[in-house]
Amino acid sequence: MRKIYVIGIGAGNPDHLTLQAAKAIGRTDVFFVLDKGEAKESMIELRRRLMKAYGRPSRRIAEGVDPARDRTPADYQGTIADWRHRRSEVTEALISEHLLDGETGSFLVWGDPSLYDSTIAILDEILARGQTLFEYAVIPGVSSVSALAAKHRVPLNRVGRPFQVTTGRRLADEGFPDGVDDVVVMLDAQQAFTAHPDADIYWGAYLGTEDEILRSGRVSEVADDILATRAEARARHGWIMDTYLLRRPER
Amino acid sequence: MRKIYVIGIGAGNPDHLTLQAAKAIGRTDVFFVLDKGEAKESMIELRRRLMKAYGRPSRRIAEGVDPARDRTPADYQGTIADWRHRRSEVTEALISEHLLDGETGSFLVWGDPSLYDSTIAILDEILARGQTLFEYAVIPGVSSVSALAAKHRVPLNRVGRPFQVTTGRRLADEGFPDGVDDVVVMLDAQQAFTAHPDADIYWGAYLGTEDEILRSGRVSEVADDILATRAEARARHGWIMDTYLLRRPER
Ligand SMILES: C[S@@+](CC[C@H](N)C(=O)[O-])C[C@H]1O[C@@H](n2cnc3c(N)ncnc32)[C@H](O)[C@@H]1O
Ligand SMILES: C[S@@+](CC[C@H](N)C(=O)[O-])C[C@H]1O[C@@H](n2cnc3c(N)ncnc32)[C@H](O)[C@@H]1O
Repeated sequence: MRKIYVIGIGAGNPDHLTLQAAKAIGRTDVFFVLDKGEAKESMIELRRRLMKAYGRPSRRIAEGVDPARDRTPADYQGTIADWRHRRSEVTEALISEHLLDGETGSFLVWGDPSLYDSTIAILDEILARGQTLFEYAVIPGVSSVSALAAKHRVPLNRVGRPFQVTTGRRLADEGFPDGVDDVVVMLDAQQAFTAHPDADIYWGAYLGTEDEILRSGRVSEVADDILATRAEARARHGWIMDTYLLRRPER
Repeated sequence: MRKIYVIGIGAGNPDHLTLQAAKAIGRTDVFFVLDKGEAKESMIELRRRLMKAYGRPSRRIAEGVDPARDRTPADYQGTIADWRHRRSEVTEALISEHLLDGETGSFLVWGDPSLYDSTIAILDEILARGQTLFEYAVIPGVSSVSALAAKHRVPLNRVGRPFQVTTGRRLADEGFPDGVDDVVVMLDAQQAFTAHPDADIYWGAYLGTEDEILRSGRVSEVADDILATRAEARARHGWIMDTYLLRRPER
């Protein structure tokens, strides 16, 4: 039987790796990598560093080309489903070609694999097709959300209250969700926080890396600074990953 | 200056510790422990084990007695605020008595410190009083939510969709939140999932420990099993910690 690990590696700081993840890296024969283009060079660099630090000398790398994806689709969920499907085909080909019987393969997943990541769904889709068989296990990691909260030293929830994790697109389209005053926003390409001047924001970019940037305060007071800082950093790096907690004051 | 770490240690599995957390444990002169009574023996045991594995031989332990707390209060938030205040006084006394100038003290926090944990708020309350000064940093950890999702190999969100993290009390009082079909429930003493027979549940108790129990399926089909299993385990251990993801089917 072939074995696959989906390993959460944390969202930028190499020391956010868990002991369980380090051990799984050390048991891995083949690492599967879907190349996302040069933009994400520092994400590739973290993976390389962890493989080198904790991997076997004999480890192999099986690289596939990530299918192209429409970044501003009209039908977001349909486009993602289609992209995921094409990704699952590329991934299946990689597994069946490179992972031998009795071997262990791994996917090193940014942050925690349960949060806005498609690796689990892709493996399930491959297994559902029934052509390529393997066992798989998921190893949890420190998410960018936990990293954000830690750096700002702020709890995600208030006492006995819920919080919501959502996308920039949802926040922009639907406004602040009902019944919730604490919202964590990921994948925000449109800086949806600017529509909520009375909220407090805890914002972080490139969390856990040397380029980390943190800002917090009342949105009305810090939005301009965040917009300018974000635009400048994005231009300099060629890409950005950022996330934030929006907190409506107690009413 | 005195330095304090709030260290997320994961929610049960000693190998969920991050390298950053292990290093911080190794730099700690004094560990602060608030005794929660015998019920949580296995939580105390995990902390003891991590201190032994990664701590300095010269480490000290400063133990305080956790103030009593009304477990079924009428005014939940008021009661918690009051309890937190009394806790902050006990904690402040521990810090000022046991942490010497130039030393490092640590709190080992279950899971991730940003999730339904009061340590950050307590330290902020102490600092706000201005009597006892220190620097502090938060080290993120693998939360029980990430551990739950990993064991069930299930993403917390569906493509491009939000999810909410809430308490059993909120779910029972307010029903399934508006606009969200994926809810993670913590601190549920009343098994609020039973009111949602059409949802799918991914349930886990004592996650990451040797006593881990997992169940999943349509609530209408698995609720009885979960209720019986939970009651039996709780009677046997004298306490239980469990959490679950409730997922409403696509409509
Ligand atoms: C595709 S999702 C993957 C999330 C990942 N699985 C996790 O647990 O953090 C990518 C989004 O995560 C957030 N993100 C990931 N890493 C980050 C970092 N180091 N700093 C800030 N945001 C980050 C950003 O919102 C980004 O748009
Ligand atoms: C006071 S909260 C602390 C949460 C913690 N900070 C975290 O990140 O997981 C305690 C709740 O977390 C959940 N929990 C913590 N550890 C767990 C475990 N090992 N298995 C199942 N649930 C757990 C339960 O819902 C429990 O009621």
